[in-house]
Amino acid sequence: MPRAAAALQTVLDEITEIARASENRGKVADYIPELAGVNPDQFAIAVARPGQPPLVAGDVDVPFSIQSVSKVFMLALALGKLGDRLWSRVGREPSGLSFDSMLLLELEKGYPRNPFINAGAIVTTDAVLQGSIPREALGALLRFIRAAAGDEAIHINERVAQSEIATGHRNFALAHYLSSHENLKNAPDLTLGTYFHQCAVEMTCAQLANAGLFLVGGAGAPRLVSEARIRRINALMMTCGHYDGSGDYAFRVGLPGKSGVGGGILSIVPGIASIAVWSPGLNHYGNSKLGTEAMERLASRTGWSVFGPDTRQTDG
Amino acid sequence: MPRAAAALQTVLDEITEIARASENRGKVADYIPELAGVNPDQFAIAVARPGQPPLVAGDVDVPFSIQSVSKVFMLALALGKLGDRLWSRVGREPSGLSFDSMLLLELEKGYPRNPFINAGAIVTTDAVLQGSIPREALGALLRFIRAAAGDEAIHINERVAQSEIATGHRNFALAHYLSSHENLKNAPDLTLGTYFHQCAVEMTCAQLANAGLFLVGGAGAPRLVSEARIRRINALMMTCGHYDGSGDYAFRVGLPGKSGVGGGILSIVPGIASIAVWSPGLNHYGNSKLGTEAMERLASRTGWSVFGPDTRQTDG
Amino acid sequence: MPRAAAALQTVLDEITEIARASENRGKVADYIPELAGVNPDQFAIAVARPGQPPLVAGDVDVPFSIQSVSKVFMLALALGKLGDRLWSRVGREPSGLSFDSMLLLELEKGYPRNPFINAGAIVTTDAVLQGSIPREALGALLRFIRAAAGDEAIHINERVAQSEIATGHRNFALAHYLSSHENLKNAPDLTLGTYFHQCAVEMTCAQLANAGLFLVGGAGAPRLVSEARIRRINALMMTCGHYDGSGDYAFRVGLPGKSGVGGGILSIVPGIASIAVWSPGLNHYGNSKLGTEAMERLASRTGWSVFGPDTRQTDG
Amino acid sequence: MPRAAAALQTVLDEITEIARASENRGKVADYIPELAGVNPDQFAIAVARPGQPPLVAGDVDVPFSIQSVSKVFMLALALGKLGDRLWSRVGREPSGLSFDSMLLLELEKGYPRNPFINAGAIVTTDAVLQGSIPREALGALLRFIRAAAGDEAIHINERVAQSEIATGHRNFALAHYLSSHENLKNAPDLTLGTYFHQCAVEMTCAQLANAGLFLVGGAGAPRLVSEARIRRINALMMTCGHYDGSGDYAFRVGLPGKSGVGGGILSIVPGIASIAVWSPGLNHYGNSKLGTEAMERLASRTGWSVFGPDTRQTDG
Repeated sequence: MPRAAAALQTVLDEITEIARASENRGKVADYIPELAGVNPDQFAIAVARPGQPPLVAGDVDVPFSIQSVSKVFMLALALGKLGDRLWSRVGREPSGLSFDSMLLLELEKGYPRNPFINAGAIVTTDAVLQGSIPREALGALLRFIRAAAGDEAIHINERVAQSEIATGHRNFALAHYLSSHENLKNAPDLTLGTYFHQCAVEMTCAQLANAGLFLVGGAGAPRLVSEARIRRINALMMTCGHYDGSGDYAFRVGLPGKSGVGGGILSIVPGIASIAVWSPGLNHYGNSKLGTEAMERLASRTGWSVFGPDTRQTDG
Repeated sequence: MPRAAAALQTVLDEITEIARASENRGKVADYIPELAGVNPDQFAIAVARPGQPPLVAGDVDVPFSIQSVSKVFMLALALGKLGDRLWSRVGREPSGLSFDSMLLLELEKGYPRNPFINAGAIVTTDAVLQGSIPREALGALLRFIRAAAGDEAIHINERVAQSEIATGHRNFALAHYLSSHENLKNAPDLTLGTYFHQCAVEMTCAQLANAGLFLVGGAGAPRLVSEARIRRINALMMTCGHYDGSGDYAFRVGLPGKSGVGGGILSIVPGIASIAVWSPGLNHYGNSKLGTEAMERLASRTGWSVFGPDTRQTDG
Repeated sequence: MPRAAAALQTVLDEITEIARASENRGKVADYIPELAGVNPDQFAIAVARPGQPPLVAGDVDVPFSIQSVSKVFMLALALGKLGDRLWSRVGREPSGLSFDSMLLLELEKGYPRNPFINAGAIVTTDAVLQGSIPREALGALLRFIRAAAGDEAIHINERVAQSEIATGHRNFALAHYLSSHENLKNAPDLTLGTYFHQCAVEMTCAQLANAGLFLVGGAGAPRLVSEARIRRINALMMTCGHYDGSGDYAFRVGLPGKSGVGGGILSIVPGIASIAVWSPGLNHYGNSKLGTEAMERLASRTGWSVFGPDTRQTDG
Repeated sequence: MPRAAAALQTVLDEITEIARASENRGKVADYIPELAGVNPDQFAIAVARPGQPPLVAGDVDVPFSIQSVSKVFMLALALGKLGDRLWSRVGREPSGLSFDSMLLLELEKGYPRNPFINAGAIVTTDAVLQGSIPREALGALLRFIRAAAGDEAIHINERVAQSEIATGHRNFALAHYLSSHENLKNAPDLTLGTYFHQCAVEMTCAQLANAGLFLVGGAGAPRLVSEARIRRINALMMTCGHYDGSGDYAFRVGLPGKSGVGGGILSIVPGIASIAVWSPGLNHYGNSKLGTEAMERLASRTGWSVFGPDTRQTDG
């Protein structure tokens, strides 16, 4: 292992140790019954850099439900299919409200603020689904993720998907509301079926970090979307990726990121690395509590931040 | 002039030419009578890099009212005075609503979303003012800006300040509302008097670009605040600096920025440059229309973006 | 015909003539396909007084879809079943917003403002349905309405119900949102199926006026609920019966009333009469335009108003 | 004393006894310093009927600050001055939100929902003030109230007015917000000065009940406004007179009423009586807690309700 990698590995090990010793671990999402039973003591972190094996620490072999992190991949697919026409159906602004809020959706007549709150992600999924069937759309998503991660083993957990279909009343409310404004092109049940399956993709931290490499850009990174699109997706992750905690994440971590209620976070250091962290307990925004703290610690230790002068000089 | 600087000058000249030829120039803010008469045909841009003379193009000798761009400097002062205690009085999240909205302020009981919407900036000013008098607080602000810009000529336009005092009912409404939640420590009239004067600071584009150098960081940049604070202020500019158009600015330009209704925008390329652009016509968010377009063009031509891999390699 | 009845008949005939000549007839509800084709030129009015045959004028033989007027009858059933426990699930305050708004429902965590906006009516229906099946609940509703009207011919239009089931996305959104707050006890589809059928009850104006007699009270009126409950239901009709146009209706007409998007309005003169009016075109609140105008004219001509001193002296 | 009056007196005495024994008395408004010190143990009730001396019970000699009850009298003056033109500046719908909310005022661009929430009352006062000076407008108000009550001793408590001027930040916020939408015609400070003085009118319960007689109508009642206007003012009191507790008051009491944070309530039985009740402790809507309970008890004992058949038959 080269010296820089060894130093970074030490940082990851220390971060993992601190996380494991942490007493206040947040609260596991309990509104998806299938996820409510996940052991909150788990923690894992992985850093992938183009052309190098990922560095990992913690419970690295445990796959977790990526949930809303999947919205990043579906957005990439939707932009590939529709290009800028997508923005006629969903906006690019932080909502300032919780991920399943209906308030702004009503004030703005069914035009969701961005593709990372639930309403916007349902529209994004609907756009990818249009003209095909759920199995095809989900197949395209899995192909994209597997190609990005370089790992054909990534799959969807059917029980988690069914669990959400049975209990996801808030998402059904959002989908029907979108339909009432004619901002869904498929039947709500079809779009939601696809959406719930997309959220049920499972990965380990190493797989997720690898899958995020396509957003790092630069030499050696997988080239699945254009450089211009990389920047734009990263921009959306920065301003909208953590719901009404996005400003706080930008303030504390300084990197684009997308969280999921399964406890996973994907964060990008443009030109340098893709980072995945996972711990099931959530803070009051619905983002991983220890995951956010670990990312803050990693950013501080490595100097990785898009907002300071030394981001690129410090390479771990 | 070195080759890189010459190339960048060419880009600035081209951008200025395009802006000058633009027919749809937006709408000059008319609710501040003293600003309503500004000639909308004007345009200027300046790029300052540590240790180099600023490059400029357009109406570079015309001072303009920086208005809300002043919130960046007052925030730096407030953080210097209070540190993290400031966050007990104002948040760090995008509001998703217009700069003078009272809706969220009511739902969140007088705790403004961030220091860059009006309510949050009034609280920030109130924090700097506390324990002193308006003249002292404004003196501290001018000293800070003059030190940052290296220019003792920067001043406050008293007529613009008085014009706002006479007509700024929306800001009076915000200040009294904050007072009703005991989130102002001074009398509303005192805090607002200070606030309106702070907004009435006038600069040319070159002065403003120079004044922003303290947020660039790295070798040769003025060191007025710590590296950690630079990152945090830049993060806030990214997520909140353009009101409910912040997401769009991040998406299109990819740089931290702060706009003012006078038509000025200050944007930072961490480690590289501070950019000021000015054109009085505003888009529907209340941000300079041609200014935003010019910034998008400049980012595209130079590759400057915090969200892509090539930010630092391309130096103009 | 006694003299008072003859005078009232003359008033009804004049009102009908004015309505028929009216050019601005409002807009027929087009979001329920089966109702969109109703001829907007129709108008009818009926006044029922305890112990007397109803007086009618206009298109008195045409049955229309009573839609939300049904909420009055379902509320009476729910109060009969649950008594004051109903108020733990739905409030008694005007919402100040449109009948299908989700904004307040979100701010108030799934507790609808009153039983006459859609969300509150869905909860009311859910309460009546609980412990039985839709056919039984609808059977109970029809029995109640038929008993009140003294007319066994009143029925449900199945095509209208199916039309709403197919297109009522806003109501599906409300029902799922209520479920997400555990304020529905049955599956949303079951409750909504019942709700849409209840709204599809059809009556002529004379049938509806007769059915409303149970809210008139006093000697000779059908006694289906207690005097105390009559007052309370009338109070709710006054403050909430016309959605965000309730204040205007109280101001102009001065009588408790409940409207439906089918163009029907039921209004009560306590102790004196039950009035039904129907015209399909709606005003911007979603209440019958000509129906409201006719009620205002009738109240003015008869002196019927609960807010003035001469209500009871003038008996037509 | 005639038999009916004696029976009613007995009811008032019993109600007063129950109120005096009540342990949970609500919370005295503490945001107006001058009112915060009022003794919460006080209670009084008075019933005035046209042509008869008022019946009273409790602390009948203690004058109290009528606060928002004054909005009824100012509305009568404004309608007398402007007629229906008033409605171009203020609505007639319940707001569904608290008396000093800014949320709807923002959504509806400075057009207050009704004349009884603070924003609407400030507009009403502004309309009466326009073209004159505060002393004249307040003089007209006092003349109106004194004429209605038949009592020249009614006056304004200057210390209460000054206390509100010093601390009424929420009302200053509302007034400036209205100004920003050009819905105030006078300077905010002038209109608010008038408004705070109007709220500081002091009366005993007997004076207030007498002053309300002009809304009773019918034979023997003072005729200060037309019968049509009586009905309309009573309608507004019914739907909007108790803020976001208006629906509850209509449901429980069944009479038009207007409350003030001084703990007073004025309620009208059309054609029969004007009732004033006072107890300083407030419920969570900001309406007198014991006052509301007393009104509910009185309505129940007398059968007075506009929503039931026996209102006029039972005359105490």
